[in-house]
Amino acid sequence: MSVLEKISSPKDIQNLTLVELQALAGEVRNLIIDAVKTNGGHLSSNLGSVELTIALYHVFDFSSDKLLFDVGHQSYTHKILSGRKDAFNTLRQKDGISGFCNPDESPYDAFVSGHAGNAVAGGLGYCYARNLLKEDYFVVSVVGDASLSNGLSLEALNASPDKPNKFVLILNDNGMSISKNDNGFYKGIINSTTKKPYLAIKSGAKKMFGKNFIGKILRKIKGFFKRVFDPNVYIDDIGFKYIGTIDGHNLKEMIKVFKRVKEHGFPAFVHLRTLKGKGYKEAELYADVYHGIGKDFKPTVNSFSVALGDAMSSLCASNDKVVAVTASMKEGVGLNAFASKYPDKFFDVGINEEYAVTLSAGMAKAGLRPFVCIYSTFLQRSYDQILHDVCLQNLPVVFCIDRAGVVGSDGATHQGVFDLSYLRHIPNLKILCPKDVNELEPALNYALSLNCPVAVRYPNGVGEIFATKKDFDGSWELIKDGQDVTIFAVGGRMLSLASKLSSYGIDAKIYSARSVKPLDFNVLEEEKSSHIITLEDNVLSGGFGSAVAEYYSKKSYPVKVSIFGLDDKFIKHASVESQLSDYGLNIDDIVKIIKNK
Amino acid sequence: MSVLEKISSPKDIQNLTLVELQALAGEVRNLIIDAVKTNGGHLSSNLGSVELTIALYHVFDFSSDKLLFDVGHQSYTHKILSGRKDAFNTLRQKDGISGFCNPDESPYDAFVSGHAGNAVAGGLGYCYARNLLKEDYFVVSVVGDASLSNGLSLEALNASPDKPNKFVLILNDNGMSISKNDNGFYKGIINSTTKKPYLAIKSGAKKMFGKNFIGKILRKIKGFFKRVFDPNVYIDDIGFKYIGTIDGHNLKEMIKVFKRVKEHGFPAFVHLRTLKGKGYKEAELYADVYHGIGKDFKPTVNSFSVALGDAMSSLCASNDKVVAVTASMKEGVGLNAFASKYPDKFFDVGINEEYAVTLSAGMAKAGLRPFVCIYSTFLQRSYDQILHDVCLQNLPVVFCIDRAGVVGSDGATHQGVFDLSYLRHIPNLKILCPKDVNELEPALNYALSLNCPVAVRYPNGVGEIFATKKDFDGSWELIKDGQDVTIFAVGGRMLSLASKLSSYGIDAKIYSARSVKPLDFNVLEEEKSSHIITLEDNVLSGGFGSAVAEYYSKKSYPVKVSIFGLDDKFIKHASVESQLSDYGLNIDDIVKIIKNK
Repeated sequence: MSVLEKISSPKDIQNLTLVELQALAGEVRNLIIDAVKTNGGHLSSNLGSVELTIALYHVFDFSSDKLLFDVGHQSYTHKILSGRKDAFNTLRQKDGISGFCNPDESPYDAFVSGHAGNAVAGGLGYCYARNLLKEDYFVVSVVGDASLSNGLSLEALNASPDKPNKFVLILNDNGMSISKNDNGFYKGIINSTTKKPYLAIKSGAKKMFGKNFIGKILRKIKGFFKRVFDPNVYIDDIGFKYIGTIDGHNLKEMIKVFKRVKEHGFPAFVHLRTLKGKGYKEAELYADVYHGIGKDFKPTVNSFSVALGDAMSSLCASNDKVVAVTASMKEGVGLNAFASKYPDKFFDVGINEEYAVTLSAGMAKAGLRPFVCIYSTFLQRSYDQILHDVCLQNLPVVFCIDRAGVVGSDGATHQGVFDLSYLRHIPNLKILCPKDVNELEPALNYALSLNCPVAVRYPNGVGEIFATKKDFDGSWELIKDGQDVTIFAVGGRMLSLASKLSSYGIDAKIYSARSVKPLDFNVLEEEKSSHIITLEDNVLSGGFGSAVAEYYSKKSYPVKVSIFGLDDKFIKHASVESQLSDYGLNIDDIVKIIKNK
Repeated sequence: MSVLEKISSPKDIQNLTLVELQALAGEVRNLIIDAVKTNGGHLSSNLGSVELTIALYHVFDFSSDKLLFDVGHQSYTHKILSGRKDAFNTLRQKDGISGFCNPDESPYDAFVSGHAGNAVAGGLGYCYARNLLKEDYFVVSVVGDASLSNGLSLEALNASPDKPNKFVLILNDNGMSISKNDNGFYKGIINSTTKKPYLAIKSGAKKMFGKNFIGKILRKIKGFFKRVFDPNVYIDDIGFKYIGTIDGHNLKEMIKVFKRVKEHGFPAFVHLRTLKGKGYKEAELYADVYHGIGKDFKPTVNSFSVALGDAMSSLCASNDKVVAVTASMKEGVGLNAFASKYPDKFFDVGINEEYAVTLSAGMAKAGLRPFVCIYSTFLQRSYDQILHDVCLQNLPVVFCIDRAGVVGSDGATHQGVFDLSYLRHIPNLKILCPKDVNELEPALNYALSLNCPVAVRYPNGVGEIFATKKDFDGSWELIKDGQDVTIFAVGGRMLSLASKLSSYGIDAKIYSARSVKPLDFNVLEEEKSSHIITLEDNVLSGGFGSAVAEYYSKKSYPVKVSIFGLDDKFIKHASVESQLSDYGLNIDDIVKIIKNK
């Protein structure tokens, strides 16, 4: 009987012996490797957090204590230990286990995870509420070193010099952001603590010196030496007891520390060193390749990201003011080769999307032409910076928005389905949507020529390639003439959807709406007497179709516009196709509206 | 002849004697006091930054060097010194001098200021661009202590352990956020440096110990002592030379330091201590009252903020789970009395809007009922946290959005005209718009009863009071019956606008659209055969009218909807009335559309 089979409730983990816990780590690791091999997923960071999660479950009781994971790339072990081991082979599949923490999935998922930086703030919220409501439990926030330097984390860490008791911050430090960690906070403060655990000095002090007057003076002297020998005066200053560094794969050592933290109840900052990919050789060696990986451990191909990398290299070769900025997504947005070729033109600022955008505003004001390459979902963090720092100053920053639209198996926290709505109403900003990879470089060239803020939006995966005009000027392209209805479609996915209409006996006139802002007013005027259908891989509210409706609402003639976009719901993990079809872009519904016209 | 009269170009300030500079400070201070007395504005922080700005202009040449102000509450002296002294009496008036930095107003305004935290990131952008473009100038970012602990600032400060040369960060430390500064970063790191200027030790070291091997060892020993005696190891670790603290009203001392910084060119963090309100007794004593003040130094009255404070006290008295959270806006949002009455239910987290929202999400998840009270414009910072941490988890957080709509003289950086558009498309969120102060408490009670995320939106100033039903359930209220046209108006300002139609001979049926999300579908169905006009004090794109158009677009019957909202432009400072009338909500335009129907 395996150890996993013995666990019928998370509480059972508290009673396992060290030998059993070690065996459990091996079993969990195999389960993770199998599930990711079958379904794709996040491998490296999940392999790195197996032991730390087991140690936490051994010491704490998460039926009452709260466990928050920052990002959730580290939460697979937690999912397996909290009642989801049998369903774990459905990872990231429709109706299966989500790849991130989700309170709707299990009461053990104490807080949503997906976007970096929310576990310290969310954990503090739990603590303050617990204290006000006079409840009693521990709150444990597990944060990766890359997330810790995010603005939201830093705000929470610094928010008050007094931290609540029974709050445990676990720093899961694998020395990597998604790529290598090169952050000031990290290098300056965290990286320098490679000495023996500080816990011994600290906890010993009170016992040794007592609580009387002399004890106080001696503790002051100890404080003096602490400043000399322990650079983590900073962590102490923001209200935590610093404990570190601990080997994050040594169950025995971690359990000892966690028990001590539980016994004392002080606000603790436990610094664990872990190895990304631990236990799977290839993942240890190529942690960033195995960070997020496809089925059968084949890299997922995103053809737009590949095209972005090529296009950026061309742009940079022909214009010496072009630079690329990303937020810990060098690999994901396709800038690996660019970064090697143009190291001084490449800025990876870590998971700091706000900084990425305002930095680019400063660069643009000073004469450069920055291209900010960030996923649609993460760019949400920069909404205010886009509006206030870039667009209010009408600066020529180009936003290359990858993973726009539904994203498939990453699910609700990672959907890129809001960007048209959160960008369209910002003055001075233009929004372009190339229909395929061949149109990306022309779109970026056009964006560069506009000399104002421009967003260029494209999806993940391998998109259809269309026969295409070579020029790109933001006018809408007539893809197919037709008699029954006029379709304005945003991007290749929607063009593919529109092309299905012919098999339903509908002869549609189809336009590629390559510019969502401004709209192509010539086409709008030409087509005003048709029944118009708008299609977009974005929420219906406030998106492209809504812009078309706004335009016609100001005219004296009546126009029939039927808007199709995604429902006003958070969209769960599933395939891209079923997400589109289940959440508002079902071809049958579109046909119905056209035939009833 | 006054010293001010002698200055025909900013360069002239470089040649003034110390005595003249001191006289200049007095003259500038009087000019600021006069202008604020006449027009209202930000007094306290501007009086605190007179000398530091004069000292900067004496040492640097801002026709080539770049000067960035964080927030811009400190920029009046800068405006006066950079060619705008004669126009300064038009401060905050239509077509006059803006209250914040604005590159469109002067090339000396190197970067926009308004929302806190952008001056470090923007300054670094300038530096990296300067280096790449092989240009040569200094970049000086002046940051208040409250802004420094904002997430965007912290991201920028920590982003790289190496900071560029010729980058000078001036910390204008008056020990106050808008209210008192109670931040961990501030208290732990900054506040502890009250010892003699560190510059002497630091710059002396290299000279003293030389560059050879022995020198290196001696410098290491010096580093050892630095850790003991200087807590600002943190500032050093993030790549700056720390210089402080300096008296920010002592021109002689500051000039000496700035000259040294200019001579050496290292990345410098200059810590100035200033007094908010300096030189005007009442402002020194009551710095927060005089932070932002009205004409004739009378406090500006915002009746909704007053009502919010009262309502929060009632809610808290009747429901022990209610807490209030704000981001350095206790006074502004009207929570002064609440904070005194319920200190343990009141959380002012500083200028950390992201943290405020995710903290509230954690509190709500743990059983509390947080009300997050933030201005519309500043809540833009929390867009992602509202979406990802609150709404994705469908948590019962209520957002009390003050200063929604156009804000008058604060101008472009502070307009609350985007909230309906950036919130409406977020799933699970409901949006309520009480028409007057009497409806605010019922709206908040209704929001509390909904047990999901709710935004409640209201403007600044003293709004009209309407005869009102007492209940508030989100249904739209029929304010006036009529035959010619149907008006859906959001909030009291728009109802006042609609009521003017009768004087144009138009008998309008007028609804108060108290809920923007969801819409009142019963009313929409009832009125579908009318000509419908929507009115909102929000940008037209993606706002309320757009939601009405989306609704009807899915129906088989045609409906004539004319959407009125604010233009797709950034709205400059002027009176509320002229902003509405100049940017899309002109009564004559509305009449024209109605009469041409």
